[in-house]
Amino acid sequence: MAAEIIDGKAFAADVRARVAGHVAQLKGQGITPGLAVVLVGEDPASEVYVAHKHRATVEVGMASFEHKLPADTSEADLFALIDRLNADPNVHGILCQFPVPEHLSERRTVARIDPAKDVDGLSVTNAGLLATGERALVSCTPLGCLMLLRDRLGDLSGKEAVVVGRSNLFGKPMAQLLLQENCTVTMAHSRTQDLPEVCRRADILVAAVGRAEMVRGDWVKPGATVIDVGITREPHPDKPGKTRLIGDVHFESAAEAAAAITPVPGGVGPMTIACLLANTLTACCRAHGMPEPEGLTA
Amino acid sequence: MAAEIIDGKAFAADVRARVAGHVAQLKGQGITPGLAVVLVGEDPASEVYVAHKHRATVEVGMASFEHKLPADTSEADLFALIDRLNADPNVHGILCQFPVPEHLSERRTVARIDPAKDVDGLSVTNAGLLATGERALVSCTPLGCLMLLRDRLGDLSGKEAVVVGRSNLFGKPMAQLLLQENCTVTMAHSRTQDLPEVCRRADILVAAVGRAEMVRGDWVKPGATVIDVGITREPHPDKPGKTRLIGDVHFESAAEAAAAITPVPGGVGPMTIACLLANTLTACCRAHGMPEPEGLTA
Ligand SMILES: NC(=O)c1ccc[n+]([C@@H]2O[C@H](COP(=O)([O-])OP(=O)(O)OC[C@H]3O[C@@H](n4cnc5c(N)ncnc54)[C@H](OP(=O)(O)O)[C@@H]3O)[C@@H](O)[C@H]2O)c1
Ligand SMILES: NC(=O)c1ccc[n+]([C@@H]2O[C@H](COP(=O)([O-])OP(=O)(O)OC[C@H]3O[C@@H](n4cnc5c(N)ncnc54)[C@H](OP(=O)(O)O)[C@@H]3O)[C@@H](O)[C@H]2O)c1
Repeated sequence: MAAEIIDGKAFAADVRARVAGHVAQLKGQGITPGLAVVLVGEDPASEVYVAHKHRATVEVGMASFEHKLPADTSEADLFALIDRLNADPNVHGILCQFPVPEHLSERRTVARIDPAKDVDGLSVTNAGLLATGERALVSCTPLGCLMLLRDRLGDLSGKEAVVVGRSNLFGKPMAQLLLQENCTVTMAHSRTQDLPEVCRRADILVAAVGRAEMVRGDWVKPGATVIDVGITREPHPDKPGKTRLIGDVHFESAAEAAAAITPVPGGVGPMTIACLLANTLTACCRAHGMPEPEGLTA
Repeated sequence: MAAEIIDGKAFAADVRARVAGHVAQLKGQGITPGLAVVLVGEDPASEVYVAHKHRATVEVGMASFEHKLPADTSEADLFALIDRLNADPNVHGILCQFPVPEHLSERRTVARIDPAKDVDGLSVTNAGLLATGERALVSCTPLGCLMLLRDRLGDLSGKEAVVVGRSNLFGKPMAQLLLQENCTVTMAHSRTQDLPEVCRRADILVAAVGRAEMVRGDWVKPGATVIDVGITREPHPDKPGKTRLIGDVHFESAAEAAAAITPVPGGVGPMTIACLLANTLTACCRAHGMPEPEGLTA
């Protein structure tokens, strides 16, 4: 194995520490950044995520506001809560944990959140701000990947980047961010004709598909930086009854060719919550007309 | 020369005829699509464009509303007019001719226009709707290029597309449209390292840079479709005192390799106003809850 393994866990811890430093400073000025998380219904996985986010928020010194609503909450009641959070000066970031129950619409829910507090960066407004190069809040996972890439490569200008996957949540904003960094950016997806060949062009290869070990070593240009966003859970081969997480990249073979690669788990994954905290901090600074926290925005 | 020359002038005339057909039908139902054009100040080039748009609008049977404001119009007065046009049910499309005088902001002006009437597709909201795959109004020139490509190639799925230039007006929405058509899309620009090599990958090569004859024949993959968006005006070599328009593509050499190519002038250029009319028709249909005009939207 040749590649350096990019330690997303350590880097995420560093991001969180930096966020905590900013939060401490803000508190000295009487400002406490606050994140509100709304959970509708009792999906067990969502409850775990929300608890996780709550803990991380409190750990960096921010205020965490949890709002748990029953599964049969009407859209009107959900929107009334969102409106209150939009108006609340102590709340700088608002996140609605998805999925929401069937009778509610994710699209309409996201649209209800003030774009300036949309720390998941999922709204049409934030997509438009990102697409037009204006100041946006950017979806957390692509922002996290960008931070890892900048940390590893410094200036990304002129590099060939290939993003496999084009979801609104990840692939499209990732491509916009890499374009903003002056990469030559290719967007690939399920209709791409010769995906291995397209991937082989990449100095920066980002895979966000959700197909375990799809990207093989011979798809990787020697010396490339490989960012594996995919997460597939499968039965553990050695531990009966247990599961394990697999990325979109065949790690062993890709690591032979790449100069650097993120593992799964422990690569991109930990960056998502770290960037949620970074976005909340950013939203708070903007709300107070203060400079943005350096190195923590797109 | 091997390539078929794509006759944008004829195709634009066809689009306008189709728009006129829809307009006639709508009028039979008591609905007249209307386009309002706002011009601030007396820029001579802008006056020509506005007159041109007015004529084209009337020709397809739409209502044309021209609003000419003095150069010293305040933002408040301009916005009051836009607000009235936003509220006017006879106005389905609103266009502010740019540039506006220095004391006004293009960004703020566009943001004031109701996104549902923003037939230039320049607003952050429409950029966001396009980026997230929702129903948008799309910038006219990229929409025109898409129509030419669909007409020539049919299904674009799986094709390698390269867009050179990444402006908000053209390059970025063009890339989004091609992605939506399931092309593998590369966005190139001034920081791209080996632009000839990147261009040589393209089944569909779109150049929107503004550098006369930059794209040479040996940048073109044999059999590619080449769309030349660039317009540079230069002194005419044979007619002293006259000027001529040059594209971003070196036509003679590129036409040797390409299967099809748009000329300059007479290629992409005429599509822009045709698509402005198409967008106004689309906005009108949407405003009345009617189906969108087939083949005239993204
Ligand atoms: N915190 C995190 O670490 C994090 C965050 C977000 C996502 N993820 C993971 O990243 C993966 C992708 O997430 P997502 O939300 O972006 O997924 P998604 O919405 O399902 O999108 C998957 C994308 O992959 C493309 N694709 C599917 N099969 C393909 C193939 N054979 N070849 C090339 N492309 C193919 C699809 O193309 P079409 O558009 O043509 O269908 C689509 O654009 C998932 O495993 C997810 O769990 C992780
Ligand atoms: N109706 C029509 O036919 C119509 C409509 C729109 C535009 N146009 C024409 O299309 C051209 C582009 O218009 P625009 O508004 O998109 O222009 P723009 O905003 O000036 O953008 C030009 C783009 O070209 C890129 N570029 C500059 N030099 C380059 C180089 N040497 N190699 C590669 N890329 C380079 C720039 O890259 P960076 O971003 O890195 O600076 C930028 O993204 C102009 O000639 C314009 O007149 C025609």
